[in-house]
Amino acid sequence: MASWQDYLIGHKERFLKELMEFLRFPSISALPEHRPDVDRAAQWLAGRLKAAGLESVRVLPTGAHPVVYGEWLKAPGKPTILIYGHFDTQPVDPLSLWDNPPFEPVIKNGRIYARGSTDDKGNLFIPVIAAEAMLKTSGKLPVNLKFLFEGQEEIGSPQLSDFIRKNRDLLACDLVLSADGGQWDEDQPAVVLGTRGLAAVFIDVQGPDHDLHSGTYGGTIANPLHALVRILDSLHDPNGRITVEGFYNDVRRLGDEERAQMAKVPFVEAEYLWETGAVSTFGEPGFTTHERAWARPTLEINGLYGGFQGEGLKTVLPSRAQAKISCRLVADQDPSKIADLLIQHVYKVAPPTVKVTVQKRSSGSLPYLIPPDHPGLALAASVLKDLYGKDPYRIRMGGTIPANAMFLQTLKAYTIVFAFGLQDELPHSPNEFFRLSGYERGQKAYGLLWERLGEKGVGRRG
Amino acid sequence: MASWQDYLIGHKERFLKELMEFLRFPSISALPEHRPDVDRAAQWLAGRLKAAGLESVRVLPTGAHPVVYGEWLKAPGKPTILIYGHFDTQPVDPLSLWDNPPFEPVIKNGRIYARGSTDDKGNLFIPVIAAEAMLKTSGKLPVNLKFLFEGQEEIGSPQLSDFIRKNRDLLACDLVLSADGGQWDEDQPAVVLGTRGLAAVFIDVQGPDHDLHSGTYGGTIANPLHALVRILDSLHDPNGRITVEGFYNDVRRLGDEERAQMAKVPFVEAEYLWETGAVSTFGEPGFTTHERAWARPTLEINGLYGGFQGEGLKTVLPSRAQAKISCRLVADQDPSKIADLLIQHVYKVAPPTVKVTVQKRSSGSLPYLIPPDHPGLALAASVLKDLYGKDPYRIRMGGTIPANAMFLQTLKAYTIVFAFGLQDELPHSPNEFFRLSGYERGQKAYGLLWERLGEKGVGRRG
Repeated sequence: MASWQDYLIGHKERFLKELMEFLRFPSISALPEHRPDVDRAAQWLAGRLKAAGLESVRVLPTGAHPVVYGEWLKAPGKPTILIYGHFDTQPVDPLSLWDNPPFEPVIKNGRIYARGSTDDKGNLFIPVIAAEAMLKTSGKLPVNLKFLFEGQEEIGSPQLSDFIRKNRDLLACDLVLSADGGQWDEDQPAVVLGTRGLAAVFIDVQGPDHDLHSGTYGGTIANPLHALVRILDSLHDPNGRITVEGFYNDVRRLGDEERAQMAKVPFVEAEYLWETGAVSTFGEPGFTTHERAWARPTLEINGLYGGFQGEGLKTVLPSRAQAKISCRLVADQDPSKIADLLIQHVYKVAPPTVKVTVQKRSSGSLPYLIPPDHPGLALAASVLKDLYGKDPYRIRMGGTIPANAMFLQTLKAYTIVFAFGLQDELPHSPNEFFRLSGYERGQKAYGLLWERLGEKGVGRRG
Repeated sequence: MASWQDYLIGHKERFLKELMEFLRFPSISALPEHRPDVDRAAQWLAGRLKAAGLESVRVLPTGAHPVVYGEWLKAPGKPTILIYGHFDTQPVDPLSLWDNPPFEPVIKNGRIYARGSTDDKGNLFIPVIAAEAMLKTSGKLPVNLKFLFEGQEEIGSPQLSDFIRKNRDLLACDLVLSADGGQWDEDQPAVVLGTRGLAAVFIDVQGPDHDLHSGTYGGTIANPLHALVRILDSLHDPNGRITVEGFYNDVRRLGDEERAQMAKVPFVEAEYLWETGAVSTFGEPGFTTHERAWARPTLEINGLYGGFQGEGLKTVLPSRAQAKISCRLVADQDPSKIADLLIQHVYKVAPPTVKVTVQKRSSGSLPYLIPPDHPGLALAASVLKDLYGKDPYRIRMGGTIPANAMFLQTLKAYTIVFAFGLQDELPHSPNEFFRLSGYERGQKAYGLLWERLGEKGVGRRG
């Protein structure tokens, strides 16, 4: 009987063709007209799980985009591992910047180009293939597995939290492996100790009830854009520190050991500036760029709008101005409390000459941290070290994976990010791609990690 | 022989039909597809001037929309008066808000409804009719007249300044009467002592060279929206006074006599708030609302843009942010100098962490003032008093009429606004209309004013 690793090599071509088939569904969760495509992608994925040998495979409703579930629970006494990923994608605009149509995958120079290739269909498909390889060669798995693939990650997983709560027993597990995330670079692995949470508010400032002629009325009533820039400018000091009262109160201090680990992760300022196009780095004093991106909270204006938007000049005193603001949070900040602080701040500084409305945007997402000495993390690190030949960096991610905190809160299970995309693969951008090297290495990594988890156990739960 | 006033009454129906014919040209200067309509309106108007008995009537090129010229110069020893107006109109959108098609004039309840009816075809047509009435009854006029009607006022008269300079001799005159403007209300006349000038700049702030993920990069490089709100918030103090260094240096002090005249003009705060929908008036301390609107300079953000503009939230750290700013200026502020001060201010406060570009938007427009004791103004006031039975208010206009300053600069002739539209006639808005009462009263007013100017002279030139 061939080993599961031989099986992976032997069926490489088919696994690639199947991924291309999967990538052809334009499963854009943000656009209502693509809802049927999200459903079709779910059905296809369910079929694929069955073909891999998984059991109790189902497409489950959430109230919005569905979830795909499958399991294999025939390893008594062994840990139960939940595999998480998402089969929805970001929108594709601007379409004109794509070299190939985003949902017609193309392979060039060892990369597969398509929307969703690295984020997250390619990564999601890896553990499915690994499970198939083990089941088809030995008829069994070294651990119990549950697969939970969702279809609304790119819109912030609004129904997932409820879904997990309602399906607490179905999803019960000892550890979650998230197939959404990535590695440091092609030669350097990383384990993720935390992800940031999210809180968001929208500000609406109303001045006059219609746009006014700036000649007739200019200078006599408050311009809502002036009020809005006053409010927004009050949110940071000139050094970039957030000035909302109480904002930093619940931030857990970054430990010396973790700071030392972060300091080992190379940072080349010139490369960072080249990559972003910024003229300099900038941020809260007293922290390195890695620390700012991973372990400190932020407040960013994501969008600002008001008045005349066309070419040239139109001399209006506009009626309305709007801003969208989001904060990235770190443990132990609570999104709802942070949104409340922000709302209080805005109302406090808002001039009385305009009508200001501030609204919480959804309930936000909790920040997430895994104990740096979690035994499952040590096993993941050992697999990565064996495959890359290097000790993984111990990092955090600046982004938000709402699911991580949900699993911890509801299932009391920590999540280990175990994914093989790279940051340069243009997730969310035109010409998104996924390296076939990551695709293949990931399949082996999952098999090895399951073997070690089966052998050594998972360690404590959250 | 009938008097010119009898002639006006006797030909009332025809004058109304002719105005309706004139209003049928969709002479929208802002829209290239209507350029032929602007030309046709010019040709029609030239024909009408000839029919009125004017001489040397010509449609003259400007490089863009044409100008219509006509004259009658057979009153030796009498002053030469230039009549100014414009035959182009604003666009009509949103078309759905019009009760009748905008270029199919309708008469209802003593009002004529059509785009361009009050601004400015109806007002422009008044002195043409008055001239015809005098020429057809007595064969002569009490003054020398030159008519200059332009076709690009609604796009800021970009070629007019050059045209006036190049045709300095053709247009030489002792006084300009502007048929673009209006009266206070149906029962209350006003004379205009000044109009504000205009300077504008566009600010562009560039942060990263593409939109970044706010999770990955948030907190580590400067957000151009944060930089822009910092810049914009530095332009006013909390009381609404402009903080750009030197901004007020050249502002001519508002005299006590003029302040007293302005104070006679009723201002009902509750009506003003109802009209604008604002929650309160607001502006530079130490001045009344009329003074702020007419005699003090302003700086307004007309448009602001940056980051994500769609529904919902997109957590980007945006690449660019832009603002359009315009200032209304009063004598003796120079638009070019003010734009330079503003540009210097922006560069001074701009954070070094972003790339900021500030551009002057065109050369601006000069503010305009006529001496309050100008003898021509006294004659215009006397005519208005006779027709309305009330002393006219002595006001200024907050808006900008670039032509006023051009005539003063190039022809050394002051302009008296002598027009009969009212602010509530919805210029620039759907359902624009012109009161027939204003149309008829204006014809008489022009005849009377020419008689008095012929008798008493014009007074000094600028």
